Amino acid sequence: MPVLQKISALQHESDFIIKAQAVAQAELGYPLPLPILERAWVTQLDMRTLFAWCVFETYEQTSAAFYEQDPLGARPGSPATEAFDAFLLSCGFHLLDVTPCADGRLAHAIAFALRLPYSSVRRRPHAGALFDVENTVNRWVKTEHRRYREGLPNPAHADTRYLKVVLYHFSSRDPAHEGCAAHGSDDAAAAACGLQRLNDFQEAVENSFCCGASVDLLLLGIDTDTDALRVHVPGLDGTTRLDRWLDAEAVYQATRDLSVQEAWQRLEAIVQDAAASTPDPGMVKLIARLLANNFSQIDYVRQYHQDCHYADAGHAERFIGVGIGFKEIHLRNLTYFAYMDTVEEGASDLDVGVKIFRGLNVSRGLPVPVVVRFDYHGTVPGARERAIRRAQRVQAAIEERYRELHSQGLLHALLTVRDQDRHVPAEAVGSTISFATEGGH
Amino acid sequence: MPVLQKISALQHESDFIIKAQAVAQAELGYPLPLPILERAWVTQLDMRTLFAWCVFETYEQTSAAFYEQDPLGARPGSPATEAFDAFLLSCGFHLLDVTPCADGRLAHAIAFALRLPYSSVRRRPHAGALFDVENTVNRWVKTEHRRYREGLPNPAHADTRYLKVVLYHFSSRDPAHEGCAAHGSDDAAAAACGLQRLNDFQEAVENSFCCGASVDLLLLGIDTDTDALRVHVPGLDGTTRLDRWLDAEAVYQATRDLSVQEAWQRLEAIVQDAAASTPDPGMVKLIARLLANNFSQIDYVRQYHQDCHYADAGHAERFIGVGIGFKEIHLRNLTYFAYMDTVEEGASDLDVGVKIFRGLNVSRGLPVPVVVRFDYHGTVPGARERAIRRAQRVQAAIEERYRELHSQGLLHALLTVRDQDRHVPAEAVGSTISFATEGGH
Repeated sequence: MPVLQKISALQHESDFIIKAQAVAQAELGYPLPLPILERAWVTQLDMRTLFAWCVFETYEQTSAAFYEQDPLGARPGSPATEAFDAFLLSCGFHLLDVTPCADGRLAHAIAFALRLPYSSVRRRPHAGALFDVENTVNRWVKTEHRRYREGLPNPAHADTRYLKVVLYHFSSRDPAHEGCAAHGSDDAAAAACGLQRLNDFQEAVENSFCCGASVDLLLLGIDTDTDALRVHVPGLDGTTRLDRWLDAEAVYQATRDLSVQEAWQRLEAIVQDAAASTPDPGMVKLIARLLANNFSQIDYVRQYHQDCHYADAGHAERFIGVGIGFKEIHLRNLTYFAYMDTVEEGASDLDVGVKIFRGLNVSRGLPVPVVVRFDYHGTVPGARERAIRRAQRVQAAIEERYRELHSQGLLHALLTVRDQDRHVPAEAVGSTISFATEGGH
Repeated sequence: MPVLQKISALQHESDFIIKAQAVAQAELGYPLPLPILERAWVTQLDMRTLFAWCVFETYEQTSAAFYEQDPLGARPGSPATEAFDAFLLSCGFHLLDVTPCADGRLAHAIAFALRLPYSSVRRRPHAGALFDVENTVNRWVKTEHRRYREGLPNPAHADTRYLKVVLYHFSSRDPAHEGCAAHGSDDAAAAACGLQRLNDFQEAVENSFCCGASVDLLLLGIDTDTDALRVHVPGLDGTTRLDRWLDAEAVYQATRDLSVQEAWQRLEAIVQDAAASTPDPGMVKLIARLLANNFSQIDYVRQYHQDCHYADAGHAERFIGVGIGFKEIHLRNLTYFAYMDTVEEGASDLDVGVKIFRGLNVSRGLPVPVVVRFDYHGTVPGARERAIRRAQRVQAAIEERYRELHSQGLLHALLTVRDQDRHVPAEAVGSTISFATEGGH
């Protein structure tokens, strides 16, 4: 925004284009699209389109850099990923499927707050962390089928479980206003609804399939001001208590002065004691690891932000992510990410995101930038074309649902697809921003 | 319509309600809703709502009768179903998944034209028979997972295949106008697009899963004037020829004067010879059965309709079916049935249906009746409520997509759900037709 403000101030100067490009190149690292600059003199610089274009350009460069440079060192097959996958299996889990809230203040939850290799985790964010039960049963079937057919990640007869995690959130600084919008900033409601959804999923699996089919569940919360975890440690009998949890901050204080070995022992004992009933040893081991990982993040927030919490308690997302994918998004408040197949099913999630951006952007005359993404399997002929058609269909549905915003240039979309069978960046395949070519009739 | 015309003529008589109910009870077998009749004197009888209400009432009664009386003798577990399931397995197939065109002239294809027990066939109609590849891969995964987990219908190690069938259609009487609307009445295009979709599905399975995963394919066509099948017999190597097929009518003539045993032998020999390359013996056996079944239907059409073909060459559907289910629909031209999860994905299928009903109904001032259906698993807690929410979401999307029709009372919807774990009728859970209660503020 400061760069675009500077460029806006130049728009009526005679050598505007040259000056604007110099500023953009120096401060953003890329030139701006000529058609927008060239038309500025007629009326004024089309800042809404230019703003959206810059968000999309920055997103594309960031996405490309992520896949090219692997800044988190957690690409599929990386040592960190393989080590965690092995650890997870040793705890008795063959898949870690996490649904955080779509809220941008949880966009970094997997890679930073939990310090997990992103390739080891299936992430499906939804507003209020309210995932779709039937879709998740389908995901479970696919996971189990792969174990039967390919023995991956381990054979179906091995006694391990699919672990479904819900990560709700709250704000310790301003609990009544900066909690989860989908639950009216009521953290008890956020936790209760999350647990209800987890239980619905478990019952759906147990009642739909024979032979003792089931899944394990874990309810987590996170303080979006400090990134400190809240863990509702479940018992081996499947019970989870809503009124009892471990606060990572307190556990950190209780263990920080111990030696490494003593700290691990104490940590596991604390987790054990906090369980709703006698816990599963593998679950205790996993939770202890998640807590220890979280201590590093608590330290990080303390070190880089004043008063032990983030300066931005509220929303500060840069764009809305819609669709399936976005493995490259791991920065706090970068993206409100709503996982969905169709706008029809994901409408309430998307509405929350658009409402957030009405406050963040539209109130200042700036557009809502939406990046649509559909990952596809490049090994399957025709899959890329189908992913593109899906993205176009979602774009049309978004334009229809937010007709007024779109017609005023206050909503822009970039369509992207990505081959998830290869470690390559997303590919832009369309946009609401188009530059008409000259001439013709 | 004749009954409602008769009632319309009575609407300004003094004892209208009594007379109307007498006519309805005598001719339709049920009374009409009082709130509509009672309001008639103020302006005029609201025939659009009354018409839709009667369609929905008839549908509900027909659906209930189907599940209660099993007129086709083909409910799950019935002797006919078990016998065909065993025959299908003996041919080397563990699932028969058929996508006919959504066109109402194929609504009877499974139970009548092919004479198959409906419980033995998975039916997913789409406009132009163009099924969704990714959804069908999911269905394949679920089928294979069940074989691994439950050994049903047979264990995963048994050498049988998932058979995906596309059933396109054409009109022998008026090929240029009464063929498939989705393919511009071009039967070569309908066949080619169907084969392309089949091949896409096969490639998707082969490239997404290891260990020789594949599926078998079968391309069928049907003449909507005579119900005679067209079979593109595939070779064992997977090839299907678009320019070569068996015409059931011709095969019938070539075998009708033979003894039963000779006819079967001749039939199998004809199928064998028609294959694109050396065929699979199981596929030959199945196709011979389908052809023999079809002979009965050709006879039926000959016997009950003049000149060996149906009097109604074109569309004459009574309602549009949308969603997942409709196991009770097996009458020609009763329903344009578009299988879909969301209107967003199924929009083009639904548009074709609405276009057909603009011609059939709207052009005469009558509404488009849409029955929304979502089957659910009653053994799964919460599944019924989720199915209802899905139906409501689809209703809202339909009202939005066809806003003008809906606002003029020219589009009505009935929402239904059904517990597919039990042999029970569909349950109505909502409607665009509501009768306000008296009083209140």
